[in-house]
Amino acid sequence: MVGQDFLTLRDFNKAEIEQFLWTANDLKTRIKLNGERYEPLQGKSLALIFQKRSTRTRLSSETGFALLGGKPCFLSPEDIHLGVNECILDSARVLSGFVDIILARVYAQQTLDELAAEGSIPVVSGLSDTYHPLQTLADLLTLQEHFGKLKGLKMAWVGDGNNIIHSLMMGGLPMGVDINIATPKGYECDSVVVKDAVALAEKHGTKLNFTNDPKEAVHKSDVIVTDTWVSMGQEEEAKIRLKAFDGYQVDAKMASLANPDWVFLHCLPRHPEEVSDEVFYDAKRSLVWQEAENRKWTVMSILLHLLKEHIPTTPKPNFEG
Amino acid sequence: MVGQDFLTLRDFNKAEIEQFLWTANDLKTRIKLNGERYEPLQGKSLALIFQKRSTRTRLSSETGFALLGGKPCFLSPEDIHLGVNECILDSARVLSGFVDIILARVYAQQTLDELAAEGSIPVVSGLSDTYHPLQTLADLLTLQEHFGKLKGLKMAWVGDGNNIIHSLMMGGLPMGVDINIATPKGYECDSVVVKDAVALAEKHGTKLNFTNDPKEAVHKSDVIVTDTWVSMGQEEEAKIRLKAFDGYQVDAKMASLANPDWVFLHCLPRHPEEVSDEVFYDAKRSLVWQEAENRKWTVMSILLHLLKEHIPTTPKPNFEG
Amino acid sequence: MVGQDFLTLRDFNKAEIEQFLWTANDLKTRIKLNGERYEPLQGKSLALIFQKRSTRTRLSSETGFALLGGKPCFLSPEDIHLGVNECILDSARVLSGFVDIILARVYAQQTLDELAAEGSIPVVSGLSDTYHPLQTLADLLTLQEHFGKLKGLKMAWVGDGNNIIHSLMMGGLPMGVDINIATPKGYECDSVVVKDAVALAEKHGTKLNFTNDPKEAVHKSDVIVTDTWVSMGQEEEAKIRLKAFDGYQVDAKMASLANPDWVFLHCLPRHPEEVSDEVFYDAKRSLVWQEAENRKWTVMSILLHLLKEHIPTTPKPNFEG
Repeated sequence: MVGQDFLTLRDFNKAEIEQFLWTANDLKTRIKLNGERYEPLQGKSLALIFQKRSTRTRLSSETGFALLGGKPCFLSPEDIHLGVNECILDSARVLSGFVDIILARVYAQQTLDELAAEGSIPVVSGLSDTYHPLQTLADLLTLQEHFGKLKGLKMAWVGDGNNIIHSLMMGGLPMGVDINIATPKGYECDSVVVKDAVALAEKHGTKLNFTNDPKEAVHKSDVIVTDTWVSMGQEEEAKIRLKAFDGYQVDAKMASLANPDWVFLHCLPRHPEEVSDEVFYDAKRSLVWQEAENRKWTVMSILLHLLKEHIPTTPKPNFEG
Repeated sequence: MVGQDFLTLRDFNKAEIEQFLWTANDLKTRIKLNGERYEPLQGKSLALIFQKRSTRTRLSSETGFALLGGKPCFLSPEDIHLGVNECILDSARVLSGFVDIILARVYAQQTLDELAAEGSIPVVSGLSDTYHPLQTLADLLTLQEHFGKLKGLKMAWVGDGNNIIHSLMMGGLPMGVDINIATPKGYECDSVVVKDAVALAEKHGTKLNFTNDPKEAVHKSDVIVTDTWVSMGQEEEAKIRLKAFDGYQVDAKMASLANPDWVFLHCLPRHPEEVSDEVFYDAKRSLVWQEAENRKWTVMSILLHLLKEHIPTTPKPNFEG
Repeated sequence: MVGQDFLTLRDFNKAEIEQFLWTANDLKTRIKLNGERYEPLQGKSLALIFQKRSTRTRLSSETGFALLGGKPCFLSPEDIHLGVNECILDSARVLSGFVDIILARVYAQQTLDELAAEGSIPVVSGLSDTYHPLQTLADLLTLQEHFGKLKGLKMAWVGDGNNIIHSLMMGGLPMGVDINIATPKGYECDSVVVKDAVALAEKHGTKLNFTNDPKEAVHKSDVIVTDTWVSMGQEEEAKIRLKAFDGYQVDAKMASLANPDWVFLHCLPRHPEEVSDEVFYDAKRSLVWQEAENRKWTVMSILLHLLKEHIPTTPKPNFEG
């Protein structure tokens, strides 16, 4: 996969997603648990371009790339104004001469597509309006660690039909995760993405359902996932949204409909309206801190695979269970 | 001391403060003077969280941590809004998964306390409204280098009863530095801190005096210390303060009351109202540049001790003289 | 040249400029082409001080310094306010205690001069209102790579009499590059700089001409160079300038007056008014991406030479042709 872009998990097949997760687990085991020093990216540099600020994406990619021996260079919106003072074509070509890989957190998926098309180096999505594939890999790694498998897990999404669930469909369906999605009317997933997801589900024999009833989605699920209803930059819409999402808070009562061993995921930052304290801070069921840390090991896996061949030295996880 | 927090010198006894200063001297001797390459913090990462910007704290900790082989990651207020978009508990747990240690420059000491309580990794104060312990270590190292001892030195503080003198009491009194503090009425030190300081002075047999008369404080002192009267964020109070601190400028006339070998310290940035050019730029008496550089060697000592066992290879300084 | 400042190419003679270019070529060959790991700046730290933001200067110096094993520390205008919260003298002395070298991108050349005068470490210009010497080295390296020589090349400048052409005169004339400068009336080069340039041209037997007619400048030239007419911070003047520079766009028709093998340079970011798409995106003639990448290898050469002796291991380029 050296030299490829990582803009959406739709571009990668099941074997490739398994490779990403295997390598993430390999790096975590060797570097964190075994204390191994492993710096295959010495001499490589990474430009971190952030149109939107983010603690998690920033820290996971900057510290993770450095841990692999590379040199990250963080560029805020003040340092590089993509498409403002010069066109994206020009920026892409210039960046290609300075660094080996770009991770960009942007507003529009199209910005990523343009960067990738015009630059000669790999481009990694650090989130866009359409997808957040790095988050999905962290979620899948966390579920694999917890359940010892992915195939056959039942995931319930309770919330906005946004970039997070879009990516979860692209990554989860090929891995055999059944997905039930509850969104309020008017906040459904993007229809183009859904079309792709339906095709993926058919291809992989995975179940995919859409509903406007959170209880239906959560019923007999293994994993409940949500996200904030009011993303950065949508503050003005907050009142309207809070009303639309009435009844969508994940709380103990809602979770009681799930399977006995249910767990909870959230990409953070969390606001109280979408999930109760009781669920969010449940030390056994809420995997959110492990999920956040896994952002680091999964982005390291991606950056490594796009820059260099990597063959894990630890056994392949059993994703089928 | 591995795994501990460094929030105030009050939490450390005389032997531990000596250890910090010894290691700072050890690192300066080996790395700066002997040109030794010493990178015990390879594979470690540091999050630098700055609610308030600072040239000295930033440069000393970022370059110092890198010099020891670690990877610093600087986060401005735009990169992480402690307590704004998510609660400090959540930020502390997330940071604990990404980095090995946090250095935070904050408004309220309570923010440091919360970070330390909720995170699983060491937290270092890079300044708060109450304390600035890293500055005190740099001051003590500078005095040790200049006088060849700390015990028995007489320090005069002329200025605001602020975080700088609070920390000087916590670090200086156990080391045997007598302290005379002159503050204008209404600008005295915090009464809770003073209570602790009085107890420390008694325990260590060190003298501690408070006055509203700068001349009384400076009389027969070895070290005169001051700081700006108008801290960042207090600009609106400037006029009132300039009036209250009338007569508090450290100038040659005031310094003539000190011992013949007096020296001057200031944590910088300096404004002319609190110290005359004649004193501030006196190449022999003003140790301010050496003091600034020592911010680097002392923060390196702290970051190292909280992350790893370290046994200096250079002789222990004679703090007793 | 260890310990020297790099504020303008006027301070360096022909042999020194050749050395800078040779080393840039040496580093590019060894590190980029041969994949050699070469980290002579281990243990060294660099403060990057940017009063004005810049993608190219930032990325080239930060990634380049790291590639040589050093630790860069980027300081935005929010991190260090040169001359605002403390005088430049104080900042220069403090920085000298924390880092080994400073690269500063400033408004006024005088700021660089003060930093250099008061600090004890080398200061490198990352651009000022008067000069941009790092850009000139990148331009000369690009022309050397393309033409296999510098001596005897004919350069046409079509645009503003700004810092870019000021530096091109200081660096190009000693290397034997003839320069024809076309500027609109009222936008001529600085008269003090021109006086120096005329003396340089006489000393080195190089031709230097000034005109208000772009066609005259471009006639029989080998290289056409321009820059934006509206620099950052001059947006309010935009309308007046657009009118003054009417007829100054470098397009295919204007370029047809040049020698058959003409090439185009631009320091970027580019705006369409000063150069047509046809010229700017001409894959064979427009060397702008190579020129941008060479910013990295040339700043690496400067930072290395000011910090350490360096003897290239690759053959010296033939600058005379």
